[in-house]
Amino acid sequence: MAKVIAPAAAVSGKVPGATWIYRFEQGSASMRDLLGGKGAGLAEMTRAGLPVPDGFTITTEACLAFYRNARALPPGLAEDVRAHMTILERNTGKSFGGRENPLLVSVRSGARVSMPGMMDTILNLGLNDQTVEGLAALTGNARFAWDAYRRFVQMFGKVVLALDGEHFEHVIAERKRAEGVKSDPELSAEGWRAVVAAFKDIIARESGAAFPQDVYAQLFRAIEAVFDSWNSKRAIDYRRFNKFPDDWGTAVNVVSMVFGNMGDDSGTGVAFTRNPSTGERALFGEYLTNAQGEDVVAGIRTPMAIAELEQRQPGVYGQFIEIAGKLERHYRDMQDMEFTVERGKLYMLQTRSGKRAAEAAVKIALDMVDEGLISRQEALRRVGAESLNQLFHARIDPREHFEVAATGLNASPGAATGAIVLDADTAVAWAAAGRAVVLVREETAPDDVHGMISAQGVLTAKGGATSHAAVVARGMGKPCVAGCEELSIDARARTVTIGGKTLREGDPITIDGTSGRVILRGLTLIPPPSELPAWLARFLGWADEARRLEVWANADTPEDARRARELGAQGIGLCRTEHMFFGEDRLPIVREMILSDTPEARAQALERLLPFQRDDFSGILEAMAGCTVTIRLLDPPLHEFLPPYEDLLVETTELRLRYGENDARFLEKQRILERVRQLHEQNPMLGFRVCRLGIVYPEIYAMQVRAIVQAAVGLRRRGVDARPAIMIPGVGNLREMEFTAEHARATVAKTFEELGAEAFEIQVGTMIELPRACMVADQLAGVAEFFSFGTNDLTQTTLGYSRDDAEASFIPRYLELKILAEDPFQVLDREGVGALMRIGAERGRAARAKLKIGICGEHGGEPSSVAFCDTLGLDYVSCSPYRVPIARLAAAQAALERAGKREGADQD
Amino acid sequence: MAKVIAPAAAVSGKVPGATWIYRFEQGSASMRDLLGGKGAGLAEMTRAGLPVPDGFTITTEACLAFYRNARALPPGLAEDVRAHMTILERNTGKSFGGRENPLLVSVRSGARVSMPGMMDTILNLGLNDQTVEGLAALTGNARFAWDAYRRFVQMFGKVVLALDGEHFEHVIAERKRAEGVKSDPELSAEGWRAVVAAFKDIIARESGAAFPQDVYAQLFRAIEAVFDSWNSKRAIDYRRFNKFPDDWGTAVNVVSMVFGNMGDDSGTGVAFTRNPSTGERALFGEYLTNAQGEDVVAGIRTPMAIAELEQRQPGVYGQFIEIAGKLERHYRDMQDMEFTVERGKLYMLQTRSGKRAAEAAVKIALDMVDEGLISRQEALRRVGAESLNQLFHARIDPREHFEVAATGLNASPGAATGAIVLDADTAVAWAAAGRAVVLVREETAPDDVHGMISAQGVLTAKGGATSHAAVVARGMGKPCVAGCEELSIDARARTVTIGGKTLREGDPITIDGTSGRVILRGLTLIPPPSELPAWLARFLGWADEARRLEVWANADTPEDARRARELGAQGIGLCRTEHMFFGEDRLPIVREMILSDTPEARAQALERLLPFQRDDFSGILEAMAGCTVTIRLLDPPLHEFLPPYEDLLVETTELRLRYGENDARFLEKQRILERVRQLHEQNPMLGFRVCRLGIVYPEIYAMQVRAIVQAAVGLRRRGVDARPAIMIPGVGNLREMEFTAEHARATVAKTFEELGAEAFEIQVGTMIELPRACMVADQLAGVAEFFSFGTNDLTQTTLGYSRDDAEASFIPRYLELKILAEDPFQVLDREGVGALMRIGAERGRAARAKLKIGICGEHGGEPSSVAFCDTLGLDYVSCSPYRVPIARLAAAQAALERAGKREGADQD
Repeated sequence: MAKVIAPAAAVSGKVPGATWIYRFEQGSASMRDLLGGKGAGLAEMTRAGLPVPDGFTITTEACLAFYRNARALPPGLAEDVRAHMTILERNTGKSFGGRENPLLVSVRSGARVSMPGMMDTILNLGLNDQTVEGLAALTGNARFAWDAYRRFVQMFGKVVLALDGEHFEHVIAERKRAEGVKSDPELSAEGWRAVVAAFKDIIARESGAAFPQDVYAQLFRAIEAVFDSWNSKRAIDYRRFNKFPDDWGTAVNVVSMVFGNMGDDSGTGVAFTRNPSTGERALFGEYLTNAQGEDVVAGIRTPMAIAELEQRQPGVYGQFIEIAGKLERHYRDMQDMEFTVERGKLYMLQTRSGKRAAEAAVKIALDMVDEGLISRQEALRRVGAESLNQLFHARIDPREHFEVAATGLNASPGAATGAIVLDADTAVAWAAAGRAVVLVREETAPDDVHGMISAQGVLTAKGGATSHAAVVARGMGKPCVAGCEELSIDARARTVTIGGKTLREGDPITIDGTSGRVILRGLTLIPPPSELPAWLARFLGWADEARRLEVWANADTPEDARRARELGAQGIGLCRTEHMFFGEDRLPIVREMILSDTPEARAQALERLLPFQRDDFSGILEAMAGCTVTIRLLDPPLHEFLPPYEDLLVETTELRLRYGENDARFLEKQRILERVRQLHEQNPMLGFRVCRLGIVYPEIYAMQVRAIVQAAVGLRRRGVDARPAIMIPGVGNLREMEFTAEHARATVAKTFEELGAEAFEIQVGTMIELPRACMVADQLAGVAEFFSFGTNDLTQTTLGYSRDDAEASFIPRYLELKILAEDPFQVLDREGVGALMRIGAERGRAARAKLKIGICGEHGGEPSSVAFCDTLGLDYVSCSPYRVPIARLAAAQAALERAGKREGADQD
Repeated sequence: MAKVIAPAAAVSGKVPGATWIYRFEQGSASMRDLLGGKGAGLAEMTRAGLPVPDGFTITTEACLAFYRNARALPPGLAEDVRAHMTILERNTGKSFGGRENPLLVSVRSGARVSMPGMMDTILNLGLNDQTVEGLAALTGNARFAWDAYRRFVQMFGKVVLALDGEHFEHVIAERKRAEGVKSDPELSAEGWRAVVAAFKDIIARESGAAFPQDVYAQLFRAIEAVFDSWNSKRAIDYRRFNKFPDDWGTAVNVVSMVFGNMGDDSGTGVAFTRNPSTGERALFGEYLTNAQGEDVVAGIRTPMAIAELEQRQPGVYGQFIEIAGKLERHYRDMQDMEFTVERGKLYMLQTRSGKRAAEAAVKIALDMVDEGLISRQEALRRVGAESLNQLFHARIDPREHFEVAATGLNASPGAATGAIVLDADTAVAWAAAGRAVVLVREETAPDDVHGMISAQGVLTAKGGATSHAAVVARGMGKPCVAGCEELSIDARARTVTIGGKTLREGDPITIDGTSGRVILRGLTLIPPPSELPAWLARFLGWADEARRLEVWANADTPEDARRARELGAQGIGLCRTEHMFFGEDRLPIVREMILSDTPEARAQALERLLPFQRDDFSGILEAMAGCTVTIRLLDPPLHEFLPPYEDLLVETTELRLRYGENDARFLEKQRILERVRQLHEQNPMLGFRVCRLGIVYPEIYAMQVRAIVQAAVGLRRRGVDARPAIMIPGVGNLREMEFTAEHARATVAKTFEELGAEAFEIQVGTMIELPRACMVADQLAGVAEFFSFGTNDLTQTTLGYSRDDAEASFIPRYLELKILAEDPFQVLDREGVGALMRIGAERGRAARAKLKIGICGEHGGEPSSVAFCDTLGLDYVSCSPYRVPIARLAAAQAALERAGKREGADQD
């Protein structure tokens, strides 16, 4: 065999040092980056002695050279291909473009990781008006030969020449009508011959040039088309979604054709070594007799389950079972295989690690540990942390078939279905009457929160993944599709228009916050599990053993706290007190407090708010007994609690025109408008908020601190181990820290005294959410007992991006132009925000060695950001309850990665 | 003499280590921090053998101990005072509280630096019902003695007991009426005796306790009162304004009384060794015969010029002239002296460096160098850089007397007077008709800019020192008082109400942007010099020799550029292109561009803007021929060029109610509202602006770059050495820098080609105004050829303060609570913003050793910030034109300071 393997370097000698082509025997699984996943798999199978059709792989480097060469084959590549085709001819005994025994090949893309359906494949290449006759003679099957030819011409037209597939389908449909048959297999050889002629006419007409009869011209254009498909829009979108880099490029596999459509002893199939949905340990797949791979995909004929092959071709089946087991053991992972049977002979066309649903991923990993195939650590590495997200939300039943009317931002995962409601009050009313509703708004504001609580999910026309709707919905664990640009709302007519269709309030709608899809009818949903299933608990138990980082949760209500604890949270890293201010029974008092003209009136309103806060805190502290509950004092600008400025402007104008300037209704509204105007800010994000509120109005923070202490003392008297900690938001300089901490500590002491209670430790710390706080972290740590990085705000200030605006305006364009590799509100920006965090953590620890440091921005539940926090040496990450399992696994993976690196370094 | 000097440590033995009292002989000029300026001066004069009344100084440390001791004399201090009074008795041969030869003392405050009129002084202490008789007998002048007593009682009542001065004035007026005399000196001894009796009644009645007859009780209470006066409101305000720390404390001087009111051979005077207004080298001051110091201050009698003393008492005058000369030579600075002549004997009561106007400061420094008294370096150190600000603005004629109706923020210096106008269009119309107008607005917006150009000055009710009004006015060099809370505007009635008074549009008004004062009539103003006066040019020439930093200017118009150059600017560090978009002839085209539905329409509008921009750039480049002009591409969010959202909301609501929803007027307005709503942002400061605009709409930046190149080529063809540089705003990551720099460089090359011009260097650099930019400065410097720190925005993001909001909301309260020591928008925040700048500069230079680095935020003209930039090693500071002289001097002072420190370090 050795003498037919051309030394690749010699063949491509024209470009010194570049080896652009490897025969399958020359590659291996370890060369995935260069040969792509498919090429590496074919090479590995070939080396393992499995039956693989002969062929070779053009490397990803050749693809990059193609792009550098202005999308033309780089110099020397064509010669290399010709040389390898000659070897292929010799090995198969066939002739490429030869009439007697024509060599046909498939040209298949293959990137480093599988991108199913994203890039192009061309089959039956090498057929032309001459070779088709040779194929017909050789197989004695003219129908087969002409069918193969038409398939090739059709694929070439669609893939290489980018012609509309409709043209071709139309011809086939015409021909079937003419012959009076219903399905493709019934069509005669003559029929297919006529179809080919018509196809060639279409190509000549639509592309302006005749279908190439020269087989090398076919081959080179097909290779170019595959390279080109790396940068097709759908491929780019797919990479963006999956966060793959653009500079990987794709390899191209040229494989001698085998035919599954040469009769009933032929066929083609795909199979997984285990069930990719459930993880069950049994071969799972489909087989279609007398067919090529594309027939399976086309879904024209119904394939049979793989197991049935045992009856039909027991020998082939037995061989396949053996190969499947061998591959799984070889790769130590569940395999996704493609194969073809040509006249009773089995050919393996592809093998790769199979994609699987989260549930299957976990179960397969557990089983493989039990089977002794992989270690626990390997099992933990095998499951994508982010994928666990699937397990904790309702999802659309996969058996549903539906049309997607529009797609928005996948702002909060899970699916929801219900009647459209256009305002919060209606949502509350209809929900109270037992109807499931989906709140549909231009965008949401604090005023809408009660409606969001009542709704199954939220759909907005504006706002990004960290808009109010998105953040609040995620906090509540409700599905949300935000920034759906195709949505417009007519509030007067009580209708919405989505993707050109108009619906009335009350019409059913379904949203999928996991994918961003909007469907204009009610669909059946599969609910999430009510508790951690045993298999997942076992798996996460291993993660807990492996990780260094603690995982805490962000929770504002007792329900959230309980859920977080069930899912494994070891503390509450962020309990936002302002959400408690939005309750229907509290908001009027909060407004009274803000609109107070005198400190006395303000104090009275605060006094009435205190019991509410105390009860809120009590519930959360009890749910988290024995664990720290970090309560952040009031954070948002006060005007968030007042009616929107814009609404008031319109209303006062209406009242003025209707009733005149002296009317009491106008004057009262005008008074509120004035106060809102006073509080109105150009940039509220950078305005009168965070600890600035607590410094200018110390009585607000004092009330909150008293409520915390009262709640904790009450619980401890009942034997509940309540452990509150007080977190001051938005501190930027030492004096702010001193002022607020001194006030808080004094109030704690005073409240203990008032209650006649024995004092216990209540730590006072701060959120680090301003660049300045990072720079003076050493000063702050002299006063603060803990830090929590508030990376949402820190991202806003470090980058100068308003999260309310940027995700709806320039960030999408920035991602498109690759100015940004990731949305920094979703994935922590390591070079900017991360660099500041490093400074903050280092300086903080320098001043107070035992400073506890965590993160409570939304990045705390995003796997790659969790990994970064691990390298920073933080003590904990805190995320929304449903992301706790994700963070547990991500933290374990980060620790394993770190250990691996350390081991690697030790070995150097 | 040695035996009467008590070793202070021994006297205050009760508090080990603390020496709270120093006799004048024990102190010196170098002990200013401990003894205060007055105490140190008295000590220094005593040591120099000048005639100074005997006395001692209680230290500033005692004052701090007083505050630590809850505002009571700290333990041991009273005993120390008694011991020193005993020494005083021995030295003077008088007896404190004694009837025969009573010792009287003055108790005077004296902080580290002079705070004229801010703190308290008490004279004639030691008088009571007994000692007054002794004084009368001793002097043979009962009238004098009773007058002295009543003065003391009166001062005690006012200063120590804080009683209203009106009570006392009323008694004196009554008494004069009763005696039928007009002036105080005419009142008889009996009259004064009766006054004293009445005063004592007032004190008993108003304070609830009798006037203390015990002289030590008098003394201790007076000392406490002086300590207390350190924290009087006016003293705190004064310190805040002058940026003195609060923890200095004040010393107290106890000095044996001498009397200038013992007859015509007695008197009192104040004098400067040179003229404090003009700098003229001649004794300047006033003398009042037969009077105590307070009579001079009270202004009841008109003092004579100091020179007249030569005729009256040639011996005393000669001695004083000699002493004055000696003091000036001793201190090598112009002195401000107080003295008293008691029966022909001269006593020096105080000497200190005299306060002087900026003009005098410069001229005295120049003269003293010429006189060989001081070095040039010393001369440069002697003039407060900030004080030069006085020289370049109109100011209210000091001879004017007027009432201040209200005070706002001193947002842009200089005085303006004119007719009130309430909107920009009226301002333009009236100014065109030849009227001087002052634009009075709630706050200003870009729409008002044409009105601001036409107005003499701007007064707003809202906004801080960096509000739109303030920033634009400063840029234009127009006076502005912003955030005047006592101002309300009734736009319908066309009236304004200020400090309770209502004026109509057209009424005269005067504003003083240097002090923030508003006066409700027209005042005479003194105009600023039209060019740099020769004496100042000479002085700044020395500064130029001393400094390392270059001084550039921020200028948006040819006029500004010319002015900046006249004032010494070496380049333009910031030319804002957006201000050019606001011109009346351009704004409609800009709006058309923004409202365009298609890229073509946008391109057309841009094509029409190009000639305007080219002409603007041409004028500036020509004015700065030979110097770099750094042109910043478009920076602000686009909605700044559209009508305000709020206005449109009100207008559409009005149109809808008036004409219905189908009316064309409503629909057109609604269309604009929709676009504005699209562009509307929650936090425009962090929104779609800076280079983000130029990346999403590259055609805008391309137009600007073309205009720059066309202008420069046109000038060079005429032989003018135009040197533009292109500055990209708001870059936060490498890809933004690459994208914009590549586009700019490509457009530059293309435009050279279009014009058939030979290429010349046009550098492309960036503003560093985001924390992230500082962190990745090494990456940016790989592409950018220069950096300019935009510290206005960098302050906003680093601290999380919106300058539009914070200065009007929490910053004032923060300054009051000492959370902030300075307004960070006025004085660069070194620990936060400065620390990030240091990182940015270091990383930038690490990547590109010759990287040019400057600053173009408003801090670039603030002396202490300039000093910081010098230590950072920046190449230049850039500031508004009128601040160029300030920056030149500040840069020189910074270099001298650095050199001094280096020298100090070398000597260690």
